[in-house]
Amino acid sequence: MTRGEDGAREGEGRLIGRSVPRREDPRLLTGRGRFVDDIALPGMLHAQFVRSTVAHGEITAIDLGAVRTVPGVVAAFTAEDLKAGDIVARLDRPPQEFVPTAMPVLARDRVRYVGEPVAIVVARDAYAAEDGVEAARVRYAVRPPVTSEAAALADDAPLIHAEAARNTLVDVELFATDGIDEVFATADRVVRVEARTGRQNALPLETRGAVAHWDDREEQLVLHTCTQVPHQVRTVASRCLQLAERAVRVVVPDMGGGFGLKCVVGREEIAAAAAALRLRRPVKWIEDRKDALSASFLAREQHYAVRAAFDANGRILALDADVVCDMGAYSCYPFTAGIEPLMAAAEMPGVYTVPAYRVRGRAVATNKAPSAPYRGVSRPQYVMVMERLFERAARELDLDPVEIRRRNLITSFPYTGVNGITYDPGSYRESLDLCERTLRAEGWYEKQRTARAEGRHLGIGYACFSERTGYGSAAFAQRKMAVVPGFDLSEARMDPSGAVTVTTGTMSHGQSHETTLAQIVADELGLDIDKVRLHQGDTDRIAYGWGTFASRSAAIGGSAVRLAAGRLGDKLRALAAARWDVPIDRTALGRGEVFRRDDPDTAIGYVELAELAYLRADLLPKDIEPGLTATASFDVFNDGTFSNATHGTVVELAPDTGRVEILRYVCVEDCGVAINPQVVEGQCRGGIAQGIAGALFERVTYDAQGEPSATSFMDYKVPTAHEIPDVAIHHLETPCAFTETGAKGAGEGGTIGAPAAVLNAVNDALCPTGVELDDTPITPETVHRALHRRHYQESTR
Amino acid sequence: MTRGEDGAREGEGRLIGRSVPRREDPRLLTGRGRFVDDIALPGMLHAQFVRSTVAHGEITAIDLGAVRTVPGVVAAFTAEDLKAGDIVARLDRPPQEFVPTAMPVLARDRVRYVGEPVAIVVARDAYAAEDGVEAARVRYAVRPPVTSEAAALADDAPLIHAEAARNTLVDVELFATDGIDEVFATADRVVRVEARTGRQNALPLETRGAVAHWDDREEQLVLHTCTQVPHQVRTVASRCLQLAERAVRVVVPDMGGGFGLKCVVGREEIAAAAAALRLRRPVKWIEDRKDALSASFLAREQHYAVRAAFDANGRILALDADVVCDMGAYSCYPFTAGIEPLMAAAEMPGVYTVPAYRVRGRAVATNKAPSAPYRGVSRPQYVMVMERLFERAARELDLDPVEIRRRNLITSFPYTGVNGITYDPGSYRESLDLCERTLRAEGWYEKQRTARAEGRHLGIGYACFSERTGYGSAAFAQRKMAVVPGFDLSEARMDPSGAVTVTTGTMSHGQSHETTLAQIVADELGLDIDKVRLHQGDTDRIAYGWGTFASRSAAIGGSAVRLAAGRLGDKLRALAAARWDVPIDRTALGRGEVFRRDDPDTAIGYVELAELAYLRADLLPKDIEPGLTATASFDVFNDGTFSNATHGTVVELAPDTGRVEILRYVCVEDCGVAINPQVVEGQCRGGIAQGIAGALFERVTYDAQGEPSATSFMDYKVPTAHEIPDVAIHHLETPCAFTETGAKGAGEGGTIGAPAAVLNAVNDALCPTGVELDDTPITPETVHRALHRRHYQESTR
Repeated sequence: MTRGEDGAREGEGRLIGRSVPRREDPRLLTGRGRFVDDIALPGMLHAQFVRSTVAHGEITAIDLGAVRTVPGVVAAFTAEDLKAGDIVARLDRPPQEFVPTAMPVLARDRVRYVGEPVAIVVARDAYAAEDGVEAARVRYAVRPPVTSEAAALADDAPLIHAEAARNTLVDVELFATDGIDEVFATADRVVRVEARTGRQNALPLETRGAVAHWDDREEQLVLHTCTQVPHQVRTVASRCLQLAERAVRVVVPDMGGGFGLKCVVGREEIAAAAAALRLRRPVKWIEDRKDALSASFLAREQHYAVRAAFDANGRILALDADVVCDMGAYSCYPFTAGIEPLMAAAEMPGVYTVPAYRVRGRAVATNKAPSAPYRGVSRPQYVMVMERLFERAARELDLDPVEIRRRNLITSFPYTGVNGITYDPGSYRESLDLCERTLRAEGWYEKQRTARAEGRHLGIGYACFSERTGYGSAAFAQRKMAVVPGFDLSEARMDPSGAVTVTTGTMSHGQSHETTLAQIVADELGLDIDKVRLHQGDTDRIAYGWGTFASRSAAIGGSAVRLAAGRLGDKLRALAAARWDVPIDRTALGRGEVFRRDDPDTAIGYVELAELAYLRADLLPKDIEPGLTATASFDVFNDGTFSNATHGTVVELAPDTGRVEILRYVCVEDCGVAINPQVVEGQCRGGIAQGIAGALFERVTYDAQGEPSATSFMDYKVPTAHEIPDVAIHHLETPCAFTETGAKGAGEGGTIGAPAAVLNAVNDALCPTGVELDDTPITPETVHRALHRRHYQESTR
Repeated sequence: MTRGEDGAREGEGRLIGRSVPRREDPRLLTGRGRFVDDIALPGMLHAQFVRSTVAHGEITAIDLGAVRTVPGVVAAFTAEDLKAGDIVARLDRPPQEFVPTAMPVLARDRVRYVGEPVAIVVARDAYAAEDGVEAARVRYAVRPPVTSEAAALADDAPLIHAEAARNTLVDVELFATDGIDEVFATADRVVRVEARTGRQNALPLETRGAVAHWDDREEQLVLHTCTQVPHQVRTVASRCLQLAERAVRVVVPDMGGGFGLKCVVGREEIAAAAAALRLRRPVKWIEDRKDALSASFLAREQHYAVRAAFDANGRILALDADVVCDMGAYSCYPFTAGIEPLMAAAEMPGVYTVPAYRVRGRAVATNKAPSAPYRGVSRPQYVMVMERLFERAARELDLDPVEIRRRNLITSFPYTGVNGITYDPGSYRESLDLCERTLRAEGWYEKQRTARAEGRHLGIGYACFSERTGYGSAAFAQRKMAVVPGFDLSEARMDPSGAVTVTTGTMSHGQSHETTLAQIVADELGLDIDKVRLHQGDTDRIAYGWGTFASRSAAIGGSAVRLAAGRLGDKLRALAAARWDVPIDRTALGRGEVFRRDDPDTAIGYVELAELAYLRADLLPKDIEPGLTATASFDVFNDGTFSNATHGTVVELAPDTGRVEILRYVCVEDCGVAINPQVVEGQCRGGIAQGIAGALFERVTYDAQGEPSATSFMDYKVPTAHEIPDVAIHHLETPCAFTETGAKGAGEGGTIGAPAAVLNAVNDALCPTGVELDDTPITPETVHRALHRRHYQESTR
């Protein structure tokens, strides 16, 4: 909020901070959205994939002869037929720290998970394509599958990537504060948590999909695809298909969610493009739910072995963590298999003042579908572990669990942590206080006492966390990514009728950019928001953009948008200043006009200036170029910014079913300036629902042969409105000092806090039983066993 | 050629000046072009127009009831139904000089020419639409039509625009050198020419057409249309349909010619768009040849009454001209009915040193299809008149017709004429000398002597002319246009793979921009042309562009392209300079690399720099923004530049048929730097063919009721390869000093010189008969009458 204050006319209402109704909604709610599956092109064919039925093995034969005789089938291609290059994601780390795993677009000699695409069948409709898939005959020489991180790490583990000497793709030891072992040896108390978190699917409502065709006139592959990262898909497609980047145009229409699963490049979208190139006909591929659940990208299967040293007052002295992430079979572009362990290792100390830290982070390959970032990336897990550590320490030291947090929260900013990260100001303490105060005021502590007296299991749990957002180039470079997804670009263009189109390199897939980024532009220019339109999702329209992930769009994309709008505003002011023959700083913007600061009633409307800039270039001063466009980039060259929140929840356990009922959920969040509070609340609620899903419901499991057990919603419990409580949301606002909007980002926070809060609340409810749970999801069976421990012990005796 | 010399590595081949094969041709010659009629959208409907059957009248009733019952007809709309705003073109001239004539998209109360659109019929196919048109019942109260400029100027002429007091839409008297009457009174010789030129159709191979649809998701009217001026169509469509400009996207695919006819905005394309808006379905309209010939835009029907004063040595002393242009029923956007008279009035003195000048220029409305610019705009006519004046003066003063020109040509540059225009350097004299020398060397003068001795009619004719091109904002502002089509914009973008896309606001419709503008970029960047691609014809892709007309694309569009490429090159150099830590001026571009001037073997390839700029922003110096794009504008703030040429031709008249056979045609042209000589030659040849067509063949006539007589190629003689001779082309090169490429423009020249050269040659051939012809087209009948004058005189006696 540094700039533009001067650009607003006195008394003019600003839009930033207001819950402007979502401008996407009229379209989406009246069925006028356009999703990838809505795209129909003349002569379009439909693709489905022959997928591996074994988790690990050599392909000894692929026979597509019968496929090609299926009525309606037009073509079927193996990797050898398609000749597409591999998708390669790299870290610039030494070989002992990182093993790259090229992911072929279609499996060649080897398959590494059930569902891995082996061949693509293209037919006149999706039914014929499915029939074609059925007719494929692929023979495998089955190898023993690796189905857990423990198995992957075993000395005699089968190697998943023959060219690598081990299954550990990433292995880093970081920080290792001098003398940390002595701290542990001499501490008053050492508490430990060992936790496993379940493998999850980000599960966007809209599955993945693509429509590819070769535009013969433009000499461009046009790839309509459902991605969070259009330009990154372009880069990968151009490399795999040996086309110049300009010869690939990625267009993204409306999207029904992504949650990170669509911020990596999918092999199927590249395969569909390769098939369209070969056939010179449009090819559509729409992922079905079975493939989405089992063969797309997964996340979150992690194992933590952590200990923390505390003094007698509950102050944390040291943290020692070993994190192993089961990343599935391949590194995904661009984040690699390092995404989860590196995130956990770098950021685990979180909101707490941890004086000494050591962490080992490992990514291991297993014979499962590969992992992608999923909302929060490791933070739901390590926050859960940290919050468990404090709860356990509190219990062991007989401290109030809120009080022990207060004693350890960072309260003085900027704070440079033991992990080398500098945390910008946040409301860590204030959010905890307000969250606790709210639950107390609502009488939940009394209700808990009453319940316990009645033998009911009611628990209260908290989670304090911050979330690094606004990762710029510097932050990703710290992770040693070989491509550094940092900056964003924006172009603001006023047309001759005075309407503004702003183009962004970010890609809303539910984040409401058409509303929020337009609010920024409208404020910056002092223009009615109805005259502002956002354009996104077309790689031809802006030189590059890293897309939308890591809660970056408001902080980075929004800043680029604001800078571009500001430069456009400067040009409007220059035009008016020239007309008045006054210095530009004597002018300001507001209400669709440039006005004179010294005489606000003297004004020239944007429409008049726009006509001048385009249609009467003869009247322009010679030093002003015609037209009204401006571009800007924005990047972050520090450690980024930190949103923070405290979640508090109250649960009751049902003794007969083991069901965890969430009675109350309070979120106190601080994402800096909330450009649109309603949008922030939507992000919180959705994120919390996904966090609860991870805490209580969702888990992808595999059998001993590496066969995924969850291939439909019959087997994979997705919570509905029935399971998700109403959430009370309180906003605090600590503006970010270095983003152009003061916004920090709010995309992931909800998901991060919920598992810890729910797990803590369940443990609090279980307190009388003496059982503590550390793994998620917490299934009804687990709760039932905890509540009826004696019964189970007797029955197994 | 000022910049970039330093940007080329020593010994590196430059592309500018080379006949690089047309990059458009592989696509077009293998049927892979995409024209408007190739566009098919789901649910697309087809439109045809109910057109006026009377030339002048009130509409008393429109009954579309029967139309709507025709099988396949989906809708039919009148002006009242469509409610589109009028197309309004204006000059900023006082009312006595200019009368605006709003052109309704569909005729409302009144019709003003046969073929004027009255209603639009939309049906499931074009056949049903035609059937619907047949079923329309429109009643007119017929008014007397005005079918000639003389009738329009008569005191009792029916008023074509009831709201105007006269039929003269433009009436200017310009220059009127002091004492000019006395010059005429005292001159040795005053010669006169009165000439009429026939109404012509520019006749692009591809007729007009459009496909419009409302994109509900983008909230944009997408108008695929066949236009030379995409952004201007957008501006008009947005105004007529009350949409923001950004809510209109004009997309232009390949085009089969335009020649000016498509540089004004057509009412049918707007009507099709309005129908698509109302129906929310795609609507296609493809003009048929009958409508193209009679109801689109016409040109060139002019009447000159000119006298020139000469001294005894054949030096011109004064020029006094009255030009009346029959502009049809309406002013077209953006040029207005003033386009022809103002062009003629301003530029008539041409290549000659005319000391005193007075001109009256008038545009009159008639009940004919309105006029648009057509290749050369008035210059083919006034050059013909000027060249007739000199030939006549030579005859009367017994001077050689080449010699009299030599005595009057401008030879010292810059030369500011009596018309206030400053002419930049050209090869006026040199081109004449070379042209004459060529014909002499080929023995045509001897052949003529022999022919005459044998009683054959062989004539030699010349035309000397210059052609103002590179009209910038200043030049159009001089014409007092209310919108000033001057500058152009360009964006150059290098993608992360090192390929360059350059976007232009010009619109090639046969001019080979994909080749020539790419040559400019390739040279500027020192890059293989295969890595350069031009993008044009999409209003969403560049903020504005005035399109392609008036031979402006190489001079203005090409300059903008070069500047943008230069700025992109500067950015590449800055990246490399930062890497080497040297000042940017120590670097240069060539062979796809930035190299060090002091050590040319030290170089960084563009691909490496492009990857750095996009994918490794963390490594960029802080003062260099990520990405590799640059934009530039170019405008001309002087009187423009002047291409010049001399055409010489030899004809023989067939005494039995009156046919004019062209035995030889020599063109010596100077369009400044010829970016691609083969393209220039193509322009010359095509232009000369159209000029010959105007001289000898084409004329749209109307009967007394205003009914056009030429509605098919049976009635409108279009010359073919049989009638058009091979043309020898010689190039001279006087680079333009102020365009970025040195190019002056070559789009229209051929058309300008041919009518004068042919007419002069015919008159030279007729010399023995004593007959002189001044009107065009020169029909076989006219020639036959001239050759057999006595016979005709006897037969009518």
